[in-house]
Amino acid sequence: MAEVVSNKQIIFRDFVTGAPKLSDMILTTGTIRLKVPEGSNAVLVKNLYISIDPMIRNLMNKMDDTPTELTYVPGSPIIGFGVSKVLDSEHPDFKKDDLIWGLTGWEEFSLISEPHIRTLYKIKYTDVPLSYYTGILGMPGLTAYGGFHELSSPKKGESVYVSAASGAVGQLVGQYAKLMGCYVVGSAGSNEKVDLLKSKFGFDDAFNYKEEPDLTAALKRYFPEGIDIYFENVGGKMLEAVLENMKYHGRIPVCGMISQYNLEKPEGVHNLMYLVKKCIRILGFNYIDYYPKYPQFLEMTRKYIKEGKIVYMEDVLEGLESAPEALIGLFAGRNVGKQVVVLSRECE
Amino acid sequence: MAEVVSNKQIIFRDFVTGAPKLSDMILTTGTIRLKVPEGSNAVLVKNLYISIDPMIRNLMNKMDDTPTELTYVPGSPIIGFGVSKVLDSEHPDFKKDDLIWGLTGWEEFSLISEPHIRTLYKIKYTDVPLSYYTGILGMPGLTAYGGFHELSSPKKGESVYVSAASGAVGQLVGQYAKLMGCYVVGSAGSNEKVDLLKSKFGFDDAFNYKEEPDLTAALKRYFPEGIDIYFENVGGKMLEAVLENMKYHGRIPVCGMISQYNLEKPEGVHNLMYLVKKCIRILGFNYIDYYPKYPQFLEMTRKYIKEGKIVYMEDVLEGLESAPEALIGLFAGRNVGKQVVVLSRECE
Repeated sequence: MAEVVSNKQIIFRDFVTGAPKLSDMILTTGTIRLKVPEGSNAVLVKNLYISIDPMIRNLMNKMDDTPTELTYVPGSPIIGFGVSKVLDSEHPDFKKDDLIWGLTGWEEFSLISEPHIRTLYKIKYTDVPLSYYTGILGMPGLTAYGGFHELSSPKKGESVYVSAASGAVGQLVGQYAKLMGCYVVGSAGSNEKVDLLKSKFGFDDAFNYKEEPDLTAALKRYFPEGIDIYFENVGGKMLEAVLENMKYHGRIPVCGMISQYNLEKPEGVHNLMYLVKKCIRILGFNYIDYYPKYPQFLEMTRKYIKEGKIVYMEDVLEGLESAPEALIGLFAGRNVGKQVVVLSRECE
Repeated sequence: MAEVVSNKQIIFRDFVTGAPKLSDMILTTGTIRLKVPEGSNAVLVKNLYISIDPMIRNLMNKMDDTPTELTYVPGSPIIGFGVSKVLDSEHPDFKKDDLIWGLTGWEEFSLISEPHIRTLYKIKYTDVPLSYYTGILGMPGLTAYGGFHELSSPKKGESVYVSAASGAVGQLVGQYAKLMGCYVVGSAGSNEKVDLLKSKFGFDDAFNYKEEPDLTAALKRYFPEGIDIYFENVGGKMLEAVLENMKYHGRIPVCGMISQYNLEKPEGVHNLMYLVKKCIRILGFNYIDYYPKYPQFLEMTRKYIKEGKIVYMEDVLEGLESAPEALIGLFAGRNVGKQVVVLSRECE
């Protein structure tokens, strides 16, 4: 008989409107058998790191669409990206002790019955911290790479604006843009983060949006000639201010609108006529679109990390218990750098 | 000495906010010498047809940008597209009796001092009505071609929605889409126009948006599986309703938002989060982007017209005096088909 152990879990209570509360995520302790059912296609993993991403808030909304691997089920653990170690496998692509990243549960151990649907990746390179696969070498990194390099057709000398710039995606977009020879300005929600953008991440300039009563005027100051590429993470009033400051033929890749997720009635954007007047393109995208590019992304980004040309900053909290607080903190802007929760350091 | 003749003109009074009024466009009679100054680069033309386009309303707004060939000057004639005959030329590309289309003035005769800036095209084919070069073979046609064929990556079997579908651009987009094997639904603002879309232009279906209290529900009815391509001419509430009904990876080429031009405070669009959720692209564009494709566009579209595979409908008013009323009528939806004003039929 295989060992049965206790399994701490964060359970999704029910669909959310407005800001998520701690009580929407319930810590429980169940049990799990550390063995994959024979003849299944499953893997059993021990979760090492879980990734606290804005997308988790979206997944808490009630969806009318056909269920996918990302559909939340009330009473089941929250699903998100993480780094895990394989304890047992009946799947041909994974074996015991493999390190993987991909979609897992907010729990100590997960039985993943359809690994191909959860798009698990085997981690080949362990010469960087494993937690990086929740961020700069995982989904947020691929988001930055796809949205900037593949989607926005950046050119040397162009002007790039990044909002939520100290977050997991933003810090990487800014550094990619600098490495291409762009002029890069970022915004963030505290002076500490603004200092980091300039001193650590090498942005040409940065500002604290909370201290700017007139965002349109602020952007005009930083981009007197206008913005070529706006990497949109925020939405609402920020998008309005940006549209007014975009250049002709500007591009706005958008993978998130964090300012809007917790609003019951989202803000209206009133100046979309600029899309016509200035031939601007707003390009909604998802990291999933760029899975086929993961090898190119990984090669480029690992090389930059090893050469010290790209730096990365994490905000690490200890223990599964801290995950709900971490998610709420993300929307309050409390994290400095990519928010990660560590469950076990056994593979460090 | 060259002949000096009287020259009726429609003068742009001053910049406009809100809906344009007849008094914003003043009919006057000046004089003009029918000879180009020697040593200049100019052409002198007799205007035969002028094109009444929604863009004229936009050009009546005060702009802060660097002046272009399309910047309106209070006290000068309104600028717009037209078909003209060359009476005299000092420009190497044009000679007496050439027929041309491009930007001209709302007046009987125009001295165009920089023809290359006004992007005048010599008309090679006169086996179609000359007025077609204000519409299906001119700027609106190129807009339809560029926005649909070049920008939206349409595929056979996709679902296409066209708003303002009986207008100059919309009627052509719908027919291009049908010729590609798409499912096409259009909307317009009267039952007469809706009937035309179905009976004359071959749309699969059409509806009168004024009779739909819930646009979202209406679109859901016509596109139960969702919309792949929305050719956006309207903006505001229509765009909101469409976003909710778009498919994953949908595309929204946008060259105008006619519902918004006369509003002092444009409507807000509150559901741009769909751009993220469904990876939708909103693609602002301008016919100018597609000038290099004019030969391909002309060849394809002329061929379809001659084969009877594309039909075209104009709403023709007589006399320069009727141009201001025609512009105002455009925003009231009074025209049925492309609005043209004929100044002279001497080349028909």
